[in-house]
Amino acid sequence: MAEPALVGPVEVVGTGLLGTSIGLACRRAGLEVLLTDLNAEHVRTASGLGAGRARTPGDRPQLVVVAVPPDHLGEAVVAALAATDAVVTDVGSVKSEPQRVVAAASGPASLRRYVGGHPMAGSERSGPLAASAALFDGRPWAVTPHDTSDPTATSLVESLARLCGAVPVLMTPDEHDHAVARTSHLPHLLAVLVAGRLADAPAGQLALSGQGVRDVTRVAGGDPGLWQQIVTLNAEALRGLLAEVREELDVLQNALTQGDRPVLADLLERGVAGTRAIPGKHGGPAGATRSVYVSVPDHPGELARLFADAGASGVNIEDVHIDHDPGRPVGLVELVVDETRAEHLLESLESRDWVTHR
Amino acid sequence: MAEPALVGPVEVVGTGLLGTSIGLACRRAGLEVLLTDLNAEHVRTASGLGAGRARTPGDRPQLVVVAVPPDHLGEAVVAALAATDAVVTDVGSVKSEPQRVVAAASGPASLRRYVGGHPMAGSERSGPLAASAALFDGRPWAVTPHDTSDPTATSLVESLARLCGAVPVLMTPDEHDHAVARTSHLPHLLAVLVAGRLADAPAGQLALSGQGVRDVTRVAGGDPGLWQQIVTLNAEALRGLLAEVREELDVLQNALTQGDRPVLADLLERGVAGTRAIPGKHGGPAGATRSVYVSVPDHPGELARLFADAGASGVNIEDVHIDHDPGRPVGLVELVVDETRAEHLLESLESRDWVTHR
Repeated sequence: MAEPALVGPVEVVGTGLLGTSIGLACRRAGLEVLLTDLNAEHVRTASGLGAGRARTPGDRPQLVVVAVPPDHLGEAVVAALAATDAVVTDVGSVKSEPQRVVAAASGPASLRRYVGGHPMAGSERSGPLAASAALFDGRPWAVTPHDTSDPTATSLVESLARLCGAVPVLMTPDEHDHAVARTSHLPHLLAVLVAGRLADAPAGQLALSGQGVRDVTRVAGGDPGLWQQIVTLNAEALRGLLAEVREELDVLQNALTQGDRPVLADLLERGVAGTRAIPGKHGGPAGATRSVYVSVPDHPGELARLFADAGASGVNIEDVHIDHDPGRPVGLVELVVDETRAEHLLESLESRDWVTHR
Repeated sequence: MAEPALVGPVEVVGTGLLGTSIGLACRRAGLEVLLTDLNAEHVRTASGLGAGRARTPGDRPQLVVVAVPPDHLGEAVVAALAATDAVVTDVGSVKSEPQRVVAAASGPASLRRYVGGHPMAGSERSGPLAASAALFDGRPWAVTPHDTSDPTATSLVESLARLCGAVPVLMTPDEHDHAVARTSHLPHLLAVLVAGRLADAPAGQLALSGQGVRDVTRVAGGDPGLWQQIVTLNAEALRGLLAEVREELDVLQNALTQGDRPVLADLLERGVAGTRAIPGKHGGPAGATRSVYVSVPDHPGELARLFADAGASGVNIEDVHIDHDPGRPVGLVELVVDETRAEHLLESLESRDWVTHR
């Protein structure tokens, strides 16, 4: 069966960050976009940004993208399936629970037209003004057909993901929820537990903070209102993971109390193995990288000079981190490069008088 | 009482990463440096790098810096106090336990010459070849005199820290251990618990991994052998924090099971408060920052071009993150800048044809 072309119109329900960005991406590709939102002001804003035009009663979309907050997702999908004969998808962070709501309230013919989705992009910003057509470039976009989803509907949603510059990743709603529980929701919750210990720290204890705690707790700054909805909706998938963590925490506490070094070593080694399991860039296995550290005076122009010199060396920078310093206007910049290129970068930077260390 | 000048010689016991770097920093400042290590090869390497010369029996150091692994720290300090009349300091990650060992084995006159220390730098690399005179630039360096430490000894250790480019932070050994338990050891252990769930993930689940899980688990890649020693030595200070986390985990599990949204909201909000408690650059309160996102083609030269253009805008970059993409050679670079400068940077970059989003 030939894959149906995504020709539009595409209707976006909910013109927040994701909805408006999808509208912008579709407009970028030349598709007609129809915008719907309970808040008429948001529709005007999104339309003004070039994300589409307000939907009118006579419109007949080919595809409806439901992009409303998690709490209202299921009902909005049901409404879209009832109001049109379009394929309907959504962009919510959790897939099984909305799926159940939709299945309970829709007839079989309608249900076939629904294929859930979840672009892994942009969750820390919100609102139409934060939107961009490029938000999804290169990001994974989970596409989660249920048992009775029509294959042509699934293909259409995959086409949407690709049109937005993303990489569609097919999985069931259940697989998705367990995957994001493990790779997004659990990390978020444990980061919150670490950060919670900082809020009520005795005065002066945080003076020794380094890059490590900043990295671990960074995601804990996310919108509590949104995350409350997400973890509640995904409570089922989180249950098993939290139980595993609780059990391992017990093992850890006992091992520390008893000075059981082999048990501690095993736990720490499994942590190292876990960091190596995360996919590297471009989806392949994590290539061996090495970090090159450079002292950089902390004012405009210096970072640019460093990257110009790094660029001149021909070595590709895979990742960058800047360590914060508590008292001196010198920053330590960490350049992560392919292991085999690190020496060349070091020599190149040193020849241009950068203070480096290995 | 006038602060005694640090004129040297400085003896470094243990020519690993920290010891060799301290040697290099002292040489940079023109001090004579004497090197000691059980491994003569390491001494030769460190000496060859310019970190000092091998100690000889007739030498009389002004200050001895003990930089051996945590397990042997206490006994090495005892030996140094017995062998010289120098001030003795160390650079270990945990201070109370070594302090107890030293106090139990040294007479009061010797004990007064001991002031522990802990530079917050470079723990993820090891060995003399990774050393640099600039390793400590702008970093905090905890200086932890005990009850009977001589004030002139304390001043001398503070002078060492400043000479190495660091910022001395005075606190008791106990305060130090509780501080690093909260800001370094607990985050490390919880990152390890998150990473442990990745190592045995069912195939395909990690495909949706984003920057969040990478940030949270990054520190979990640290050397298990070293961390085993550190957390064992600091088990006492970690006990209370782990118990708090265990309790909060119980609250979290119950709240999820019962759908108790207010409890979840409270926990998440305390997480946000915690992220805001971490000191910002230059030691002051964290200034309000905003992130500017730019799509950057992933090959040499592009990052340099971005930073050149960012530099030309005159806006100082406070932090940088590069999101990894699983299938497309486009990276999303996040530039963290002062909130009041973000718009200017955006306009500046957009005028030079960068694809940005807010």
